[in-house]
Amino acid sequence: MRYSETDQMGFVHHSNYLKYFELARIEWLNAVEFSYKRLEENGVIMPVIDAEIFFKSPAFFDDLLSVELTLVEMPKIKVKFKYIVINHLGKEVATGSTTLAFLTSKNNRPTRCPESLTEKLQSLLISIKTSF
Amino acid sequence: MRYSETDQMGFVHHSNYLKYFELARIEWLNAVEFSYKRLEENGVIMPVIDAEIFFKSPAFFDDLLSVELTLVEMPKIKVKFKYIVINHLGKEVATGSTTLAFLTSKNNRPTRCPESLTEKLQSLLISIKTSF
Amino acid sequence: MRYSETDQMGFVHHSNYLKYFELARIEWLNAVEFSYKRLEENGVIMPVIDAEIFFKSPAFFDDLLSVELTLVEMPKIKVKFKYIVINHLGKEVATGSTTLAFLTSKNNRPTRCPESLTEKLQSLLISIKTSF
Amino acid sequence: MRYSETDQMGFVHHSNYLKYFELARIEWLNAVEFSYKRLEENGVIMPVIDAEIFFKSPAFFDDLLSVELTLVEMPKIKVKFKYIVINHLGKEVATGSTTLAFLTSKNNRPTRCPESLTEKLQSLLISIKTSF
Repeated sequence: MRYSETDQMGFVHHSNYLKYFELARIEWLNAVEFSYKRLEENGVIMPVIDAEIFFKSPAFFDDLLSVELTLVEMPKIKVKFKYIVINHLGKEVATGSTTLAFLTSKNNRPTRCPESLTEKLQSLLISIKTSF
Repeated sequence: MRYSETDQMGFVHHSNYLKYFELARIEWLNAVEFSYKRLEENGVIMPVIDAEIFFKSPAFFDDLLSVELTLVEMPKIKVKFKYIVINHLGKEVATGSTTLAFLTSKNNRPTRCPESLTEKLQSLLISIKTSF
Repeated sequence: MRYSETDQMGFVHHSNYLKYFELARIEWLNAVEFSYKRLEENGVIMPVIDAEIFFKSPAFFDDLLSVELTLVEMPKIKVKFKYIVINHLGKEVATGSTTLAFLTSKNNRPTRCPESLTEKLQSLLISIKTSF
Repeated sequence: MRYSETDQMGFVHHSNYLKYFELARIEWLNAVEFSYKRLEENGVIMPVIDAEIFFKSPAFFDDLLSVELTLVEMPKIKVKFKYIVINHLGKEVATGSTTLAFLTSKNNRPTRCPESLTEKLQSLLISIKTSF
């Protein structure tokens, strides 16, 4: 991980894991050929509405982490993901989940998950692994 | 909030709230006259072992946020805090909780909350409010 | 400073100073009664176009830092600030400078500093101190 | 770049570039088979003592950036690097330089660059490119 992400305990600071979850979500959207950029261009934003993290063992500067993301169910007006973060030795570093809402960027109103996205999800993997 | 904490949705990025919770904990330790620095000097570290956040309404660049921290029960080998984040208009922005473990910094082993800290807690307020 | 801003050397990570400079600029705009928010609402953005930092002595978790900001000259299409960062013991932690451009938010084209801002600067202090 | 690194102008926040420079330095140490971790284990730390950045054109969320790092001269008690940041379209996003000091981690005193490192540099490339 990045040196700037460590703290004076020598651990990767716990606030970074929400960023790693986000990296995995972006990768997931790319994997289903549906970039977050395109979502925003279509007037839809996806703010996180809740998050839960369990820190199992610390991560260190020199670690290579992977996040395994699983889509819990087909998205409607919300979408929930689960995450498992593993280091290069295969050790579980953290687990967690986040729920995101679909909102119109114009007035921040709830909207349904774009059909063009749900269609892609029907036929495609819903669990991906991102390393960084 | 800091400009660097906003994202391109114009919202304070959700990963920052774990930092705000941490600011409130530091303030709480100061309020009971027990700095985190002193804890570390005594060979005790307090990593976060789980966290939960509910994002109620977005925070913006110009907002002034306050975090109300409540100690859920007397700390033993773990300590749990609850948080309510409110903006300058009194609107609830987020709520959440974190559990922290007491570990020896030498070998990252669980240890009990230092008595010098629990003593202070007996007689002192256990709910504080931090603004920033 | 925030615990999340330390790194495993135990120092405040050097990338944070550009955020502290920014905090001082925001404070400076507030001091001349001209919020950055209002600037953006008027279709003007102020990206940083260059920055220079000299790190004199490390800052630590428990330090209270102040940034003294000085406006180098009346802003035209650019504005340059100098900064001195001092800790609570009066020790110089860092110095630096940044140049910012005035751009239209619509198409990122150079524009002149809004007159309503330069007017305020004529009569007001151009050096301020921010603590955090 | 990471979504969390954007700001409400829609640009990658300028404070992140110092982190990108750091990523390139870590990669450079790896390229000469000399990890930063090993340096710290040998009681040597390398804090940044000055930095300079010129922001040429904004970087955006979906950009892939590369940093080309060049070692300016053989390190003695300091080491200076130059950087060019380029996006996936080949456009120059930023340039800059940083100077780092070699210090003993024990008492933060200046020390010479470890010989084991300078030896490696004699025979190896001193310009590398990191993408992320």
